[in-house]
Amino acid sequence: MIKGDKAFPRDEYMGRLAAVKHEMTQLGISAIVVTEESNITYLTGYTAQSGYVSQGLIVTLEAEEPTFFLRQMDAPAAIHQTFLDTDHVVGFSEALVGDPDRNGFDAIIDFLHDAGAAEAGVGLELTHLQAPDVAKFRSRLSSATITDFTDIITWLRIVKTDLEIEKMREAGRITDAAIQRAREVLRPGVREADAAAEIISQLLRGTDGIVGTGLASFFLCASPRIGTPHIPWTEDVLRPGSQVNLELGGMRHAYVTPIMRTFSLGTPSDRLRRVHEAEVAGLEAALAAVEPGRTCSDVAEAFYRTAEAHGVTKESRCGYAVGINWLEATASLKVGDPTVLVPNMTFHLMLGNWIDADFGYALSQTFRVTESGAEALTAAPIELFQID
Amino acid sequence: MIKGDKAFPRDEYMGRLAAVKHEMTQLGISAIVVTEESNITYLTGYTAQSGYVSQGLIVTLEAEEPTFFLRQMDAPAAIHQTFLDTDHVVGFSEALVGDPDRNGFDAIIDFLHDAGAAEAGVGLELTHLQAPDVAKFRSRLSSATITDFTDIITWLRIVKTDLEIEKMREAGRITDAAIQRAREVLRPGVREADAAAEIISQLLRGTDGIVGTGLASFFLCASPRIGTPHIPWTEDVLRPGSQVNLELGGMRHAYVTPIMRTFSLGTPSDRLRRVHEAEVAGLEAALAAVEPGRTCSDVAEAFYRTAEAHGVTKESRCGYAVGINWLEATASLKVGDPTVLVPNMTFHLMLGNWIDADFGYALSQTFRVTESGAEALTAAPIELFQID
Repeated sequence: MIKGDKAFPRDEYMGRLAAVKHEMTQLGISAIVVTEESNITYLTGYTAQSGYVSQGLIVTLEAEEPTFFLRQMDAPAAIHQTFLDTDHVVGFSEALVGDPDRNGFDAIIDFLHDAGAAEAGVGLELTHLQAPDVAKFRSRLSSATITDFTDIITWLRIVKTDLEIEKMREAGRITDAAIQRAREVLRPGVREADAAAEIISQLLRGTDGIVGTGLASFFLCASPRIGTPHIPWTEDVLRPGSQVNLELGGMRHAYVTPIMRTFSLGTPSDRLRRVHEAEVAGLEAALAAVEPGRTCSDVAEAFYRTAEAHGVTKESRCGYAVGINWLEATASLKVGDPTVLVPNMTFHLMLGNWIDADFGYALSQTFRVTESGAEALTAAPIELFQID
Repeated sequence: MIKGDKAFPRDEYMGRLAAVKHEMTQLGISAIVVTEESNITYLTGYTAQSGYVSQGLIVTLEAEEPTFFLRQMDAPAAIHQTFLDTDHVVGFSEALVGDPDRNGFDAIIDFLHDAGAAEAGVGLELTHLQAPDVAKFRSRLSSATITDFTDIITWLRIVKTDLEIEKMREAGRITDAAIQRAREVLRPGVREADAAAEIISQLLRGTDGIVGTGLASFFLCASPRIGTPHIPWTEDVLRPGSQVNLELGGMRHAYVTPIMRTFSLGTPSDRLRRVHEAEVAGLEAALAAVEPGRTCSDVAEAFYRTAEAHGVTKESRCGYAVGINWLEATASLKVGDPTVLVPNMTFHLMLGNWIDADFGYALSQTFRVTESGAEALTAAPIELFQID
């Protein structure tokens, strides 16, 4: 298998690995097994969808490059996509797949023994392992000191490099193209599934020669299902007066730049218009509050205070860190979240508001923290789109 | 929120629940918390994509209907999609989302205490819970006897009802339409991403008035990436002589009917043709071996023996049980798998064969076990598609 075009140069990955090794050193750990898929992507560039069977990336302090253990049939994908030397990609036997007693983690534990790591400190992402696998690691590495490494790499991901920001800007251009397509195809008489097909098609085709490299979550919730955000599209036909809440994100090498927008097929109700105005005011206040040194809580407070002054409350958090495969399980834009903003953090300011079971509204803005404020990563207008 | 069209009548779900309660009784368990998403779909009809935060379906022997705990914003989707009475759908507070210390399982544990289940036998799908959540259940239900209920419902799913088979036939018709679309769009000069957009679009539009209700896994692996199955499409342009290995599945109310086919843009090489002939012979032998009372191992042996007699070996298992959300983690078509075939079991006879890092081949057949043999659930020709 030939090497393909890499998402980032080798130096970029070596910089990320150096940060991980620094954390390992601080914790007295000589080897970690990375199992969270987005963390594997972050450290290697691998994006193939093989994580439904056990696989893991082993980072040791001793070896410059990590070693990636995955199913034999998926190993060529790792060689093609990642910066890793071919002998740092190990395809384990297909006999380990679909076996109730053994899986790929047995091969990984063998490697740790061979590498002399079985007597040392070993870090595992315990939250991203199934309970029987954790038990296996503990039993087969009984001389090792197991440390929970959950979310340590995820927290490193929260501050992007300039090259990562570039991917998110590209993804944002695809996002914008998909919103433009939605404005063209959401019409009375169109089936929800057909509209979804057109918009998703745009997310894959991309724009200006930049293709979508995957399909992120996609939600098209139309009347009477606008009071809930994650229900699938249906075979129903859009009607005059229908409302459509859309959530989607362009994807570039696993980086996603999400967006939410509301579409009204015909004149919006006064209620919808009032909610929109309150939410736009809240969005502007939140973005104005973004500045290095302030906290996620500060941004959230600015949103909630402003929206409430306009008569709108929102139950759910108003955003989260975003990057590889959409949501990062780290900081939330939520009152009380103490995370201090740093340049090149990226957030999905998520103002979707499911006000009651029958009424909801969608608006969001993905942004980057700059040296002095916020940079929008999409250019789609902050509008309640009215389709006449 | 109004009730939507249900995927199945209430009686169907009550039948499934009766089988689950029988298993609970056998194990001396009075309450279970179902967390595996496909099992929740199986028992309720819920298909919204909310499982990225904690949620669970509580089945007790005492209550006729289960109670579904999920995030407040997703509760209307559960009311709309499922047969559950509205008071059996509980939306827990949004404050529990993105909180490092509490989550939806705290609400579920409170409910178990209130329901008197905290002193009894409680079943958890331990493999489908994160380690910290397992620890929380054990600590907050310290008087309960925790039993592992992992895969017990999954194993019940392996034999489909006639109504489930009907959904899989519908999904198969969408699968066939997508393969037909692939035969039209896979052409030299077409970008991989654009071909993917067209084929995925067909999977959503469906066929004959039946729309795709979701998008299952989709893989388009083109030269030089045909030696691996799960790598994403790229921006590369297909060329004369390119090979494309395709894997996809139409979806109806979460049921997926998968397929794999190989496309040759121009005359296939002798090697590819020989592999195809061996695989087709193996496929026919495997299907001929399907009969109630025989085992998964028998079917696998028929495939491997025949393919090897034609000079082709395959490392990976040759299939698995299939249904809700594609793969079921139960039986494999694998030598040594003792699962006895029963009418209305459904399998993806998966003959994809990644022979070396630079050469692979895709072919499969989803089938139902009948009273006397196998029924194909797709009608696409068993061909190596040559595009001239």
